[in-house]
Amino acid sequence: MDNDSSSRIAVRLRTWIAGAAPGARLPSTRSLVAEYQASPVTVQKALQALTAQGLIESRPGVGTFVRAVRTARPSDYGWQTAALGSPQAPARSASTTMRSSANDVIAFHSGYPDGELLPERLVRAALTRAVRSDAALSRPPAPGLPELQSWFARELGASTPAGVTPPQPSDVVVLPGSQSGLSSIFRALVGHGQPLLVESPTYWGALLAAAQAGVRVIPVPSGPDGPDPEELARAFEETGARLFYAQPNYANPTGAQWAAQRGELVLEVVRQYGAFLVEDDWAHDFSITTTPVPIAARDDSGHVVYLRSLTKSVSPAIRVAAVIARGPARERILADRAAESMYVSGLLQAAALDVVTQPAWQTHLRSLRHQLQARRDLLVSSLREHAPQAHLSHVPKGGLNLWARLPDGTDLERLARDCESAGVIIAAGTEWFPAEPAGPFIRLNYAGPNPGAFPEGARIIGQAIERNSR
Amino acid sequence: MDNDSSSRIAVRLRTWIAGAAPGARLPSTRSLVAEYQASPVTVQKALQALTAQGLIESRPGVGTFVRAVRTARPSDYGWQTAALGSPQAPARSASTTMRSSANDVIAFHSGYPDGELLPERLVRAALTRAVRSDAALSRPPAPGLPELQSWFARELGASTPAGVTPPQPSDVVVLPGSQSGLSSIFRALVGHGQPLLVESPTYWGALLAAAQAGVRVIPVPSGPDGPDPEELARAFEETGARLFYAQPNYANPTGAQWAAQRGELVLEVVRQYGAFLVEDDWAHDFSITTTPVPIAARDDSGHVVYLRSLTKSVSPAIRVAAVIARGPARERILADRAAESMYVSGLLQAAALDVVTQPAWQTHLRSLRHQLQARRDLLVSSLREHAPQAHLSHVPKGGLNLWARLPDGTDLERLARDCESAGVIIAAGTEWFPAEPAGPFIRLNYAGPNPGAFPEGARIIGQAIERNSR
Repeated sequence: MDNDSSSRIAVRLRTWIAGAAPGARLPSTRSLVAEYQASPVTVQKALQALTAQGLIESRPGVGTFVRAVRTARPSDYGWQTAALGSPQAPARSASTTMRSSANDVIAFHSGYPDGELLPERLVRAALTRAVRSDAALSRPPAPGLPELQSWFARELGASTPAGVTPPQPSDVVVLPGSQSGLSSIFRALVGHGQPLLVESPTYWGALLAAAQAGVRVIPVPSGPDGPDPEELARAFEETGARLFYAQPNYANPTGAQWAAQRGELVLEVVRQYGAFLVEDDWAHDFSITTTPVPIAARDDSGHVVYLRSLTKSVSPAIRVAAVIARGPARERILADRAAESMYVSGLLQAAALDVVTQPAWQTHLRSLRHQLQARRDLLVSSLREHAPQAHLSHVPKGGLNLWARLPDGTDLERLARDCESAGVIIAAGTEWFPAEPAGPFIRLNYAGPNPGAFPEGARIIGQAIERNSR
Repeated sequence: MDNDSSSRIAVRLRTWIAGAAPGARLPSTRSLVAEYQASPVTVQKALQALTAQGLIESRPGVGTFVRAVRTARPSDYGWQTAALGSPQAPARSASTTMRSSANDVIAFHSGYPDGELLPERLVRAALTRAVRSDAALSRPPAPGLPELQSWFARELGASTPAGVTPPQPSDVVVLPGSQSGLSSIFRALVGHGQPLLVESPTYWGALLAAAQAGVRVIPVPSGPDGPDPEELARAFEETGARLFYAQPNYANPTGAQWAAQRGELVLEVVRQYGAFLVEDDWAHDFSITTTPVPIAARDDSGHVVYLRSLTKSVSPAIRVAAVIARGPARERILADRAAESMYVSGLLQAAALDVVTQPAWQTHLRSLRHQLQARRDLLVSSLREHAPQAHLSHVPKGGLNLWARLPDGTDLERLARDCESAGVIIAAGTEWFPAEPAGPFIRLNYAGPNPGAFPEGARIIGQAIERNSR
């Protein structure tokens, strides 16, 4: 530390300046010499330092004054480069799916359903009731409102077959959105530098959470029927991983739904390797022609950690999700949540519970199913007609997205730019791959605004593919 | 993997059982032999496995049936012990300050102000307006609602002296509570295994976030005037740390407020070591007899990362806080927030902004100041009269807590138990120390329910100290 007297004087004067009006006159050098018991040279040195910092200005023959102008100097934060060093994980750029867009574009990129697919009246009524209740001014227990814990446990319990112990409310930890759950699970159950198996392609948000947690991501290929159990076993064997992250129902981005038997086989492999399956049931409320039966329903040995969100189906403002886990794993996750955010707003929890326990919620889900089916079918037929080069390996039975394989050699970046300049936003498939993409894919969300424009959107995409594939 | 045919049959039958009603009869062994093209011995082996798993039961001479009873078997999650290994950070137990308590106890332990100190009408009115607005159904930008960013920037800018560039709205990242901010800052700016300097004693939630981030905590002693700058310089020098976490105004738990000059000196040391000061301004709205001037207001070189929360002063249901940081540090923090939770509920952001921009908010803050003063003075005088052994090194000029030093040799655990059995909950000071406590301290919150019972509470504490000190 620089302890010499001129910097001590500068520090004291800076405090004085901080409290002074712009333009105020500083005490004369003579009185400063007396006050600080220092030599005139020392005082002068302090004043020069403050002048250099832009805090004061001296008018020769008149005096020294607090600078009147609040300078908005451009700052150089270069020193931070040394303090911060390299990031621990390579930064993933912001996802296309989080972009908001103007009203006049055809938006296929979003990760969220359009407002017209949300139960608006239900949400506003539930929030209004919650605002009037105790929930608006109180703090709920760390694991969540007990009634909401029970609801999440009952939902999973409803699919639990005979002979399997259904989850208990105390197995549930309420979360402020499922992204927080992914972060906590990877931090708490995998840990820094340890391996994590994921489907490839898989949800970009999970890849982001994995990078943040500093875990080592190992891709396991996954197709329309899910991952190959033998391939999964090999990955566990080779890496020593103890956790596999997957979306067995209507995976994002592919829309794949595992057959029941495939699920059983995967679960057997997970059990055999003494590992966890993290089942991200993100699209539970977005089924179209099948019923999503969680794999977690068939497990009572603590091997499946189950994640379910309400944010996308209820409202983006109601960030409420839950993780269901048993045994020490649940304790680790809860401890991480407590360190991360203490608890989830009781107001949002009360409103979410209110929405999903209204009879109108079931009516809404039925109508949503029909709307999603109509939108999906319209986009599928539009693509077949106007963009036949975009190959769909299958039509998803739920979820919000189509996953299309484009001709080899398509330049995805140029394609996306071309589409955008023609008023169509698409998401390049690259974001969903933990490593190199297996080919040029795009993801098209059929739950966005204005489905009437789907044929026109498909036409623009078809033309852009024409121009951008060799 | 066990690929033999009996387990393949078991897997398929389990799927069948999952869809069957309890009590349903399984196909005969003969038809299973035909269906699976397997020997009777193989089929029998599969059935035995399913019986052992409690899924089916055979009634000799009658047939095999899906088990009717949903057994709630006690599960053994011992396998998880191997999968999880030791926790990366030693677990800190749940804080006393988060306990909720019955109405008939005298509660000095909480970290939150009682409901009667909250602006209830303002909060409900603001929430009601937010529920009717777009915020109830839309997703705000990741860094926060622009108007709320501006408000946070203006608040800090109001204390910014001449010659210092005030913070811009774009320097603000809105958070779902300040705990999330601490976690993000430690993860993003310190990183796994790296050193972090903290005041000792300091906020237990910061110690929890540090443990979660896997950083190495190094205590710097801090008294009623703040840390000794020379001591701080020595700690930077010896550890190579690049970040110092502190609460310069009304520190939790001690209530200390640094003098302006002390703040300048600390900032000089931080600058000299090319480091960050994380200023946690948790009690900005809880001043009593002084004005809290953030140190961040005097810095435009990106050395101070400033944290301000509204959760405690507005409502525990409105989890909204903000971090103000400049340069690459802000980018790192924002990237961590995006990975952790994408965005903060727009409904809560809109309601928070509404509350703090009402004229009634200023009226509320003035009345809160008087209430806190009356409560603090009552608890101080009650302790002096009924528990003179509890020594207060100073009377805090803001915040919510008294920090009392008890006689050497006091058994804090027994003391807390004794108090509790007499209807008084206190928080042992141990939680606030990153290492061994510097002595037996207790923290007493004077913002809890029922201040009328403070004298009685002090009497019980005094008697318990009598019994538990040697």
